[in-house]
Amino acid sequence: MKKVYIGIIGFGNIGSAVAEFIKKNHQVIIANAGIDLEVKTVCDTRKLHIPYSLTSNYLEVINDQEISVVVEAIGGENPAKKIILAALNKKKHVVTPNKEAIAKNMKTFLAAAAKNKVQLLFEASVGGGIPIIQPIKESLAGDKLSQIYGIVNGTTNYILSKMSLEGKDFATALKEAQDKGYAEPNPTSDVEGYDAAYKAAILAMVAFQAEVDWQKIYREGIKQISQDDIQYAKDIGYVIKLLAIAQRDEGKLDVRVHPALLPKKHPLAAVSDNYNAIYVKGAPVGPLMFYGQGAGGGPTASAIISDIIIAANSKNKNQNSKLRKINLKKIGEVKSKFYIRLEVPDRVGVLAGISKIFAQKKVSIAAVLQQETDGQVVTLVIMTDQVAEKNLTAALAAMKKRPIVKKVCNVIRIAS
Amino acid sequence: MKKVYIGIIGFGNIGSAVAEFIKKNHQVIIANAGIDLEVKTVCDTRKLHIPYSLTSNYLEVINDQEISVVVEAIGGENPAKKIILAALNKKKHVVTPNKEAIAKNMKTFLAAAAKNKVQLLFEASVGGGIPIIQPIKESLAGDKLSQIYGIVNGTTNYILSKMSLEGKDFATALKEAQDKGYAEPNPTSDVEGYDAAYKAAILAMVAFQAEVDWQKIYREGIKQISQDDIQYAKDIGYVIKLLAIAQRDEGKLDVRVHPALLPKKHPLAAVSDNYNAIYVKGAPVGPLMFYGQGAGGGPTASAIISDIIIAANSKNKNQNSKLRKINLKKIGEVKSKFYIRLEVPDRVGVLAGISKIFAQKKVSIAAVLQQETDGQVVTLVIMTDQVAEKNLTAALAAMKKRPIVKKVCNVIRIAS
Repeated sequence: MKKVYIGIIGFGNIGSAVAEFIKKNHQVIIANAGIDLEVKTVCDTRKLHIPYSLTSNYLEVINDQEISVVVEAIGGENPAKKIILAALNKKKHVVTPNKEAIAKNMKTFLAAAAKNKVQLLFEASVGGGIPIIQPIKESLAGDKLSQIYGIVNGTTNYILSKMSLEGKDFATALKEAQDKGYAEPNPTSDVEGYDAAYKAAILAMVAFQAEVDWQKIYREGIKQISQDDIQYAKDIGYVIKLLAIAQRDEGKLDVRVHPALLPKKHPLAAVSDNYNAIYVKGAPVGPLMFYGQGAGGGPTASAIISDIIIAANSKNKNQNSKLRKINLKKIGEVKSKFYIRLEVPDRVGVLAGISKIFAQKKVSIAAVLQQETDGQVVTLVIMTDQVAEKNLTAALAAMKKRPIVKKVCNVIRIAS
Repeated sequence: MKKVYIGIIGFGNIGSAVAEFIKKNHQVIIANAGIDLEVKTVCDTRKLHIPYSLTSNYLEVINDQEISVVVEAIGGENPAKKIILAALNKKKHVVTPNKEAIAKNMKTFLAAAAKNKVQLLFEASVGGGIPIIQPIKESLAGDKLSQIYGIVNGTTNYILSKMSLEGKDFATALKEAQDKGYAEPNPTSDVEGYDAAYKAAILAMVAFQAEVDWQKIYREGIKQISQDDIQYAKDIGYVIKLLAIAQRDEGKLDVRVHPALLPKKHPLAAVSDNYNAIYVKGAPVGPLMFYGQGAGGGPTASAIISDIIIAANSKNKNQNSKLRKINLKKIGEVKSKFYIRLEVPDRVGVLAGISKIFAQKKVSIAAVLQQETDGQVVTLVIMTDQVAEKNLTAALAAMKKRPIVKKVCNVIRIAS
């Protein structure tokens, strides 16, 4: 039987779970894949009592002739980038859950992997334990993919679920997520959509073999979502989710991250708590959804171990390493339906005035909900038909100059 | 670039969709997989006007030196079995959506494939376009799987969805499914659970590398599910789904197909219409769900084309061809919670009598719903705690002998 020695760089939550399950599932892996995996060396700066050779110098891992697969589990762009490149250049297969390093450097990494005839695999970087990268590359190799919608950030999905199902406000739900360990003490990367943007970039690059500069991805977090928005959305048959979107659009790629109203019947609408799911549309396959735990040591280790097995069995298998150039669609050009919540004065003619401005900017109104009120202010919820975002932006700008609108409380795209 | 010639045997809905999308997605497949697929020969007994070499003799396909992958798309066990074996013995990779042939002959086919160093691939046989076989074999190769619950029959899922969401009765929903082409004129294979049993056998064999005699799989269809059951289930927070179940249970395999009450919060509960989904639990990955179109030419072609690509790239890759012997758990030994709907006389002491019989047979009652009634008959809905099925069967038999029960209307297992 083939024996495969593994080096793990970074022995935190994920690195240690990989070692644990390589040992625990040793017989299962032999039965499933016919190979004998063994962790040989761990690189970590801490003093650890572990039954593996321990070093604080990653060069001892990547220079080891016996080790054929290196797991990079440090996280963050640096020094992970340097280590991944060095390992690839030493002709080691590299497996990593590092979404930031992969999103920012996929092209460079793939080129180094191709040059050295080794594999760079990163199933765990999107959706934790959910098989999505490999199914896109392999199971959907015969399909022309058109759309990916991902709920790829468990923290924000947990917060939005609590707001939706339990009526909590954003701050309370965030605190609860932090108490449960689903959110970091500094939640910026999750709440502002950075984490989801890394994953959107990775999904877009894998699905469309295109180079995507993650910094050009339009990104909007969930902080501005209020309980009011959640309730109005519910009343009209929608839930609000933070979506990572990657789709073909008239020869360009439309890649973005933002909260969106999703019809209750959409398969993603039922994905709650800290679960992740990726919805993929392709031809001829139609719509698919992949659902599971998007984070945590165990699920992430599952994805890493399967990548280790794929790498070990790869025999210099070609991997498609070329990412073509393609233009990203600018957010102003993207067409969506919109949900708009406004506060307007409670007097005759306001709706007519708003309608007129919308019409001038070619924004067509699909529905208006007017909430009852005693006071001087009425809340209006307007749903538009499909329109280029720049038209809507222009309409809202024009409206703000006029006394017919007191406040634009929120504008949320509607996904379908 | 690698050129791969394909022979398709059986050019109906599925075979022709495979040819259509190999042509339509030719450039996409080159970009995704770096291989040039071409359908060379089609075998069909009809006279067809097609841009491929046409024969009515399958030997002309399997004897063709240029053809390396044969798609068997006839369906049914015979003559498909003979053709698949002959093709494998001619050292052709075989790709097939034929659930019946695979479920009944997987061991024989895998042995022939191993002997001839070719691949036998059948992603399309379960869940249509949903990637499930390959993800289990590859993406979950590091996991110890414990449970698979599948909604794998679109016809019955459509019928149960219509009954649940629109209040239709079984006969009306079946008629509608037939009108939409989701159900055959003779719906036995779907409605009685045969189709799901083939798929349960395949999933169990792939996930647990165990030989499963599909005839020993406990199988129950959906005909006896009434609108009453659906409504009572709904009242207590459940939906009724036809499940294909395969799970490890105390050193044995528990494989069965039957309708089950599923909690509304279970990810499978939201899978409606003719969609399929497969829910998989493993360690360390936790729960996963794979969702999509379980039938139809397009989705099935997607799975077949991805298998063709895997086969073409396989380079005599070993496939795990050994299925171990394992005992199937007998249905009487399986432990479940149960939903029981009874009609009982409307008089004092009935519930006490029923409770006593349950207690004697060690069946513990978790909840009782008693419906109001004017007449002489009351409907009781009883939910039990977990109990071995044989105990429940004994309790119901004892009850039928006594005047305290007029009728056992239905008994449905509760899945969790």
